[in-house]
Order: sequence, then structure tokens, then C-alpha cells
Amino acid sequence: MKLQAAIDRVSLDKALDLVAKFDGVVDIIELGTSIIKDYGMETLKAQNLKLSNATLLLDIKTNDEGVYEFKKGYAVPADILTVMASSSNETIEQVYELSEAQGKATFIDLLGVTNDRVAELKHLENAIFGLHHSKDTGGNFDAVATVADFHQAFPEIKHVAVAGGIDLDQAHKLAEQGIAEVAIVGGKISGADDPVASAKQFMEAIK
Amino acid sequence: MKLQAAIDRVSLDKALDLVAKFDGVVDIIELGTSIIKDYGMETLKAQNLKLSNATLLLDIKTNDEGVYEFKKGYAVPADILTVMASSSNETIEQVYELSEAQGKATFIDLLGVTNDRVAELKHLENAIFGLHHSKDTGGNFDAVATVADFHQAFPEIKHVAVAGGIDLDQAHKLAEQGIAEVAIVGGKISGADDPVASAKQFMEAIK
Repeated sequence: MKLQAAIDRVSLDKALDLVAKFDGVVDIIELGTSIIKDYGMETLKAQNLKLSNATLLLDIKTNDEGVYEFKKGYAVPADILTVMASSSNETIEQVYELSEAQGKATFIDLLGVTNDRVAELKHLENAIFGLHHSKDTGGNFDAVATVADFHQAFPEIKHVAVAGGIDLDQAHKLAEQGIAEVAIVGGKISGADDPVASAKQFMEAIK
Repeated sequence: MKLQAAIDRVSLDKALDLVAKFDGVVDIIELGTSIIKDYGMETLKAQNLKLSNATLLLDIKTNDEGVYEFKKGYAVPADILTVMASSSNETIEQVYELSEAQGKATFIDLLGVTNDRVAELKHLENAIFGLHHSKDTGGNFDAVATVADFHQAFPEIKHVAVAGGIDLDQAHKLAEQGIAEVAIVGGKISGADDPVASAKQFMEAIK
């Protein structure tokens, strides 16, 4: 299993500092939606980001105008971009085709959609399907049980990511479970007193 | 009926130039999702935008972390911000409450949702419900018929906006129809050879 560390709700300088620090430590570095909407992809592109080891995901949460947004994101350059499962079929198919043509990856964010919608999208075999607990709904989220339920419903979906309050214990259990390809951790890493030390603990937990 | 002119897929300088030119001409100036995701709300805030006559809408298309995004948008300062109807109830309720408390307006983007979802949201009486034809789906969109159908299904919803390839003829018919409160026009105004002249033609058409 891979570890994706999400960076959110910090200044651009702090975000860039964390990107540099996480490179070589975690598998995937995410610049979250807050960073995109606060500073923008053109601003990120101007930083000439070059990661040595990690993969860069921009959580742009595309709803429409998919090709425009994905071209901008890949120019940053991102390796993985996100599209909402609630978008039109056309939007999702267009960004998927673009990603495939560029050797990049589409992450389909399943926020707020039912299994019926997932069934319509499951043929996109290289897409990463992201199980995503809305921050705003609060409450508890059992990542391990959610992944198990999803896998039972859609055993044919190969690439599964999960996000939502994952702690060290849950990360360890997700890795043992062996279904999710990616565990996404936000505040528990990037909001820690020592983000790099926390990232290393999570990497250890998923070994 | 009011005219909302949407600015999209241009440089920041061009966008700011259009904002200045449209102020005093149209009712609502929209900085579209492309401007938000390309340049960011912090960048817009730093411009110290001050509109004399028009209302400013930022099409931030919130999916989650609603209060964070809406606080950033109102600090720009925007008058109206958009949230996706496909977001969680918690997200929509939280941004609606924040908007009400600040004397601002929530625009609920109905992209990709069914009438069942609208029925769950229609109690938010001060929200603007945005009928929105996905750009990526292409094809024809009959704004007048769509507004009529929506009004028949939800006569109690007071604030209706409509977007999707609206031309001068459709704008005129929407005004005559008298249901929609706002007609949103994008490329046909801001992509015209003379955007201000085009904006004035649309204002004339909806008189």
C-alpha cells in the first residue's frame, strides 16, 4: 500500500516547504483543494516543482470543463488529478482519455455518490477510485470497513484509495487488509508538530 | 431579470480588465471556476477588487470544506459563492448559514443532480438555484424550456439562475418568461470581439 500525504489550509510557502520535506519520504504528495483554490494552478506551475521520488497529486475536484482543468494540472506538472464522480459521464470520460494519453492517472472522487454511480464508472480500469469521507459531515469513519464493503460490491475495481481521519492504527489495518492501494492522510501528518516524523511513522505502519 | 456575465479561461490581467469594464454595465460579474483554479482566491484578494455597481460572484464550486472555502471567497470580497448540489447536506447547510450571517448569497449549482436532490434543498429559501448545462456534455440546451420545467416541479423556489449557451434571443425569451431571476452568459459576452458592446446588447435584450 502507498501513503499519500495531503497538504491543506496552509500558506503557499508552507505548502511548498512540506512538498520538499515529504519528497523521498511518502509515496504520493497531495496538494489539496484548499491549496488549488487559494493559490491556483498557474501559481503552482510558476514554482517549477520538481519531485525526485514522490508522485504529485493535485486535488482539483473537477466538476466540469474537464479537459481545460486537467491540461492545466498536468502542466504544473501533476501526475494524478481528481475529478468528481458526480460530474457528467462526458467530463469523466474526457479527462480519463486525456490522462491515459499522457501516461498520467485519473482519481475519481466518490464523495456523495452511491454505488449505482460507481457501477457506471467501474469500466475505467486504470482510474483510482477514491473513497472519501466528507470533512463537513463529521462523525466517525471506519476506513477499513468502508474499503471492505466497497471491495465486496466492486471486486473488479483494482485501484482503490481511501481518505478520512486515518490514524496510525487504521493505516496499519488497511495495509494488512490488502485491498486499498493508497491510504490518504491529511492533518495527522501535515498538521503534526513534526510532519516528517509523522510521515515516517505512517510509512512504518503500512510496511 | 438580471444579467450575469461570466469570465473564464483568460489570464488574470484580462479577467481583471473585464471585471473593470463590466462594472456598471451588467448586474453580476462572475469570475468563473477556471479563474479560481488557475489563480486562486488569495491572489484575487490581493487585487483589492472594488466594484461600484455590480455584484461579484466567484464560481468556486465547493464540494467539501464549505466554511473554509466560503470564508476565503467572502474575504476576496465576493457577494455570491457557489456550492455543488451534489455536496453533503452538511456542507450546503453550513455555507448557507455562513452566507445568511454575512448578508451574502449561496448559489447552489445543480450540475448533475436530479429533482430528488433539489427537493431536499428547496427549503433553503434565500439560496439561488442554478440550472446548469455541463459544458462537457455539448449538444443543445433549451434554457427557456428547462426553466419552465424546473418552475413547474418547484414553484416554491424563488431564486432561479440559468446557464448554458444563452444567446440574445434566449435571453430575451427568458426575460419575457419571467421566471428566472438571473441569466448567465459566458463566452457570448466575455469572448466577443467587443465584450462591453455585447454585454450592453444582452442588457437591452432582457429589458
